[in-house]
Amino acid sequence: MQAVTGRRRGRPPGTSGTREAIAEAARRLFADRGYDRTSLRAVAEAAGVDQALVSHYYGSKQQLFVAVIELPFEPELVVPRLVSGDRATLGRRVAEFLVATLESVEGRSRITGLIRAAASEPEAARMVRELVSNRIFKPLAESLAVDDAPLRATLVGSQVIGLTMARYVVQVEPLASASPDTVVAAIAPTLQRYLLEPLS
Amino acid sequence: MQAVTGRRRGRPPGTSGTREAIAEAARRLFADRGYDRTSLRAVAEAAGVDQALVSHYYGSKQQLFVAVIELPFEPELVVPRLVSGDRATLGRRVAEFLVATLESVEGRSRITGLIRAAASEPEAARMVRELVSNRIFKPLAESLAVDDAPLRATLVGSQVIGLTMARYVVQVEPLASASPDTVVAAIAPTLQRYLLEPLS
Repeated sequence: MQAVTGRRRGRPPGTSGTREAIAEAARRLFADRGYDRTSLRAVAEAAGVDQALVSHYYGSKQQLFVAVIELPFEPELVVPRLVSGDRATLGRRVAEFLVATLESVEGRSRITGLIRAAASEPEAARMVRELVSNRIFKPLAESLAVDDAPLRATLVGSQVIGLTMARYVVQVEPLASASPDTVVAAIAPTLQRYLLEPLS
Repeated sequence: MQAVTGRRRGRPPGTSGTREAIAEAARRLFADRGYDRTSLRAVAEAAGVDQALVSHYYGSKQQLFVAVIELPFEPELVVPRLVSGDRATLGRRVAEFLVATLESVEGRSRITGLIRAAASEPEAARMVRELVSNRIFKPLAESLAVDDAPLRATLVGSQVIGLTMARYVVQVEPLASASPDTVVAAIAPTLQRYLLEPLS
């Protein structure tokens, strides 16, 4: 029945269109339902293909997750752009960029998807850890050129994860309905200190 | 078979011992496996009772979760104790208390259990939100007696959630292996600012 649906939607099994349709369905389901509640079967149904095809292309659920998770921005472009410029306002630039990303539907969906996956089980946490360590924290630490740069990058990460959880996932008030400007003003000095000021 | 196990362990169904055994098993499973992966059947097995008895005492899984989740400290005692005393060092006192709680096995298990449940589904997030709002954020905000106290309390919450996720759940380095003293020194000024200093 799933294969029939696939044909009905005009995607013969085995084309790159099918592969991409599976990836799109997986990204959406991981973001909407969380890692735990996304099954290979549900991904196959949403993509309109047979479940065997999902396994053929991507292997296990964990392998599928690794293959399709994407950051909502390209750190290779964003980190150098944020770090260059006046250091006295770096925390504010980072806060503005993060809040703007979290306020967009697509950016929020990807970031909450990553965090919810990390909260679900140790193996997913490991995959998220490697992704953010290699793609965000390491480049950020290297570009800072200050003492304790790796710790600083992860402290920034801790505030970003916590803001995402408190404001967008748990939706605790009044933080959940505070304006983006209020949130930026509140966390910018925190990020500035974590990034560049003395930590102890 | 489960009922037999219950009898073997000397707990006749229907006693308060059984009820408490179910609660203990549920607390442990919610903390270890997360909300999503804890089933009423698994709780019944771990408690050595029939699943019908779990439903009889606690109803649905959501109702069971609400009944058994507990904060790792009594906010009614802790908040007034922390807030009284020198305001200039309030952030440090709160940071020291939180890190000490998170460094204990029991405290960490309960806090990560709450956060992982909140990340799993909107209904669990709602229950966690009500718990922390009513028991922690509101009393904290009332005792602060400053402008924007409710927002300040939730900003503190955001850093605490993020520290828990980054250091103890995702375990991102070097934050995960930093000493408790290093972590306290890093976040104390953040909490001090969120609690008492100008936010914008």
